[in-house]
Amino acid sequence: MRFVVIGGDAAGMSAASRAKRNKPDLEVVVLEQSEDVSYSACGMPYNIADPDRDMDDLVVRHAPAFREKQGIDLRTGHRVDAIDPGKRVVSGVDSRGELFHVSYDKLMIATGASALPPDLPGMVLSGVFVLKNLEDGRKIKNFIKSTPVRKTVIIGMGYIALEMCESLRARDIDVVMVKPGPKLLPWMNREMASVVRSEIEDQHVRLHSGTEIHGIERKGESLIVHCNGLDLVGQMVLVATGVRPNSNIAERAGLVVGPSSEISVARDLKTSDENIYSAGDCADALHVVTGKKTWIPLALRANRGGWAVADNVTGKSVTLEGVAGTAVFQVFDLQVARTGLCMKESEDSGFDPVEMVIKSRSRAHAHPGSSTMYVQMVGDRLSGRILGAQMVGKEGVAHRINAVAVALHQCMTVEAFSQCDLAYAPPFGPVWDPMLTCANQLLKKM
Amino acid sequence: MRFVVIGGDAAGMSAASRAKRNKPDLEVVVLEQSEDVSYSACGMPYNIADPDRDMDDLVVRHAPAFREKQGIDLRTGHRVDAIDPGKRVVSGVDSRGELFHVSYDKLMIATGASALPPDLPGMVLSGVFVLKNLEDGRKIKNFIKSTPVRKTVIIGMGYIALEMCESLRARDIDVVMVKPGPKLLPWMNREMASVVRSEIEDQHVRLHSGTEIHGIERKGESLIVHCNGLDLVGQMVLVATGVRPNSNIAERAGLVVGPSSEISVARDLKTSDENIYSAGDCADALHVVTGKKTWIPLALRANRGGWAVADNVTGKSVTLEGVAGTAVFQVFDLQVARTGLCMKESEDSGFDPVEMVIKSRSRAHAHPGSSTMYVQMVGDRLSGRILGAQMVGKEGVAHRINAVAVALHQCMTVEAFSQCDLAYAPPFGPVWDPMLTCANQLLKKM
Repeated sequence: MRFVVIGGDAAGMSAASRAKRNKPDLEVVVLEQSEDVSYSACGMPYNIADPDRDMDDLVVRHAPAFREKQGIDLRTGHRVDAIDPGKRVVSGVDSRGELFHVSYDKLMIATGASALPPDLPGMVLSGVFVLKNLEDGRKIKNFIKSTPVRKTVIIGMGYIALEMCESLRARDIDVVMVKPGPKLLPWMNREMASVVRSEIEDQHVRLHSGTEIHGIERKGESLIVHCNGLDLVGQMVLVATGVRPNSNIAERAGLVVGPSSEISVARDLKTSDENIYSAGDCADALHVVTGKKTWIPLALRANRGGWAVADNVTGKSVTLEGVAGTAVFQVFDLQVARTGLCMKESEDSGFDPVEMVIKSRSRAHAHPGSSTMYVQMVGDRLSGRILGAQMVGKEGVAHRINAVAVALHQCMTVEAFSQCDLAYAPPFGPVWDPMLTCANQLLKKM
Repeated sequence: MRFVVIGGDAAGMSAASRAKRNKPDLEVVVLEQSEDVSYSACGMPYNIADPDRDMDDLVVRHAPAFREKQGIDLRTGHRVDAIDPGKRVVSGVDSRGELFHVSYDKLMIATGASALPPDLPGMVLSGVFVLKNLEDGRKIKNFIKSTPVRKTVIIGMGYIALEMCESLRARDIDVVMVKPGPKLLPWMNREMASVVRSEIEDQHVRLHSGTEIHGIERKGESLIVHCNGLDLVGQMVLVATGVRPNSNIAERAGLVVGPSSEISVARDLKTSDENIYSAGDCADALHVVTGKKTWIPLALRANRGGWAVADNVTGKSVTLEGVAGTAVFQVFDLQVARTGLCMKESEDSGFDPVEMVIKSRSRAHAHPGSSTMYVQMVGDRLSGRILGAQMVGKEGVAHRINAVAVALHQCMTVEAFSQCDLAYAPPFGPVWDPMLTCANQLLKKM
């Protein structure tokens, strides 16, 4: 039996490796269009921050190891252009320009997502970058090395944009950020988002939200980002305005896709075709709070999805629970985390949500080194359930959010959560963990 | 109606304050034997570590504030010696030696716990201390200030002993620790306990576990702790060998107590007497994993219990869920956390437990500043449930444990937990959170 995987990043290589482990005599072929497989994409901003580190440090396992140690037929430089589900054949072009055809018994589409750059004049100019794959990372790092970049204009203000903002500031590059939308982090409670904004502005970064962008133009050594009412000038422009699923070949093959063109999969990661699975940033998932389909491309789900596909392909029946959309990022001294639904998402999903935000100390009364942290929690008036939470603070945020994530998986009520026996010691928080204080306060409003 | 509270620390003052808030015309009398109320007892080791801080910084709210701002009839220096449940009267002696009698409609026993010093010759010598209440803390701090303490012998190796070890080392005082039991942290997985042991020994602290102690003797400026086969010499001896519930008056009043003399309470915190409640370190609780009574005196439960008593006394019917025994402490650079049952407790409770310990990195692949962390998880072969978890590491331990604590409250299976959507970003952990990796590995053994 031959198991063919399209895409050699997190989901694809997880699936290929596990399938081979599960069933050593299975023929596993991975078709990857680039030369890079199995790298820590999320590590790129941190790598760019350090001029002494090589971008290839982020490679978790190199292609030869997959081939020689694991017996995976890994073909890099192989771009798949079409799937024929009837004949069970994929076809494409390799890096030498030669056509190839590979037949499969089971197929996995793990094509991930691509940067979704806005349709602006000047996007193709030298010095304008996106950051999605390792090659993008190398280009940015080489550019900074070879060109005197004193200032960078970042278009977008999402996770990647903010992580890159910090990364560039660490290299003493001035940063200005711009986006058309009015809010810095639109999903975030307004008070908490303003804490994040202040932290960024304290690093001498100007944030122009609510600013329409007309195009990018080169003028001598500089690039000018023309906006409504202002021109932003830098030697580099980074466009980080979100991603879209790489689902063209899936759509052309007639597979069912969702509203953002994400590939629709069942709980066993099977697409609408009996022999085709999909996982990773190109595939959808159930949301544990709404019970409905969602598309939240994140690394853990990609890896977990890869494993589940491998298990199902090798005869062990596995289904996945949904996602909670748990995410965390660091921006300068702040940790920012979320799980579940924000207020707007809760309303849009038909809940009757109510929100509480509390301000707490990160350490116990009179304990030195304490800082302010914010916890937000959303509850549903009808069911009493927790719908989501957000946190911002200098310490203790990144892992605290997981307690709420577990609660969301269990459809826990705010009341039940408020009774949980959480850890306390003076260096780590107040006696009443800020999450409990928030839940207690939220209960009063419900 | 008069609500009388015996004991003015966490549980007692939480109850008094909330009862008064709930029902401003309620007469609330608090009888506290010492002069200290409402202080952060857990903060004492950290306070002692810093010669420039006053022990009274730990007072969260002073007695006059309770009296004047909250209208609580707080009587310090009032030691209660007897309860007459028939007549509904408590009686005792105040600090001037005068007898007092106070009648009640509802009574709360919040007498906490006392240090449980071993029955050793020399325990009463000057320079020998326990650390339970603020007055103990003041005595230790004053002693260190007034006496040249070059070395301290700590008897015991629990949370307080270890926190005090760190505290004294911070003041450049040599520490040697001794206890009769053979293991440093008997509840902890052996491999992980040895990590903690190494951390302590790296701070030039000698640990003599499995060493019987015969007595303490003064010789000139020094105290000698005579042990089996060795004499430990210091200018100060700290005895931190656990606590016992202060339940004498409850027992004498005929209230039901448990195996360690902890006061037995129902889920509404009521004792075996209709008009008497109890909460805090003197009272028991249900364990969420076993469903049976347990006695785990910790600060959060004391505060939560105080609130629940207040609600019940003022007519709002409240019951508490059980405890998971979630605890964390810092010892030098290590965070040590646990929740639920260890292997032995699991066996003793009739489960069929299996344990997994994994070693992981605290940050993502190739992310700088990463350190080793250990996660242990216990699962029940029969039910598939998680029974407990332990963690040790330099970062990310203290709040991570809460995710498992929530899972225990929900009687979650290891498999369900392994599917949780936890947070990931390179500065905070690997893509697969170490808890998930541990759960995945544990599943294979179950």
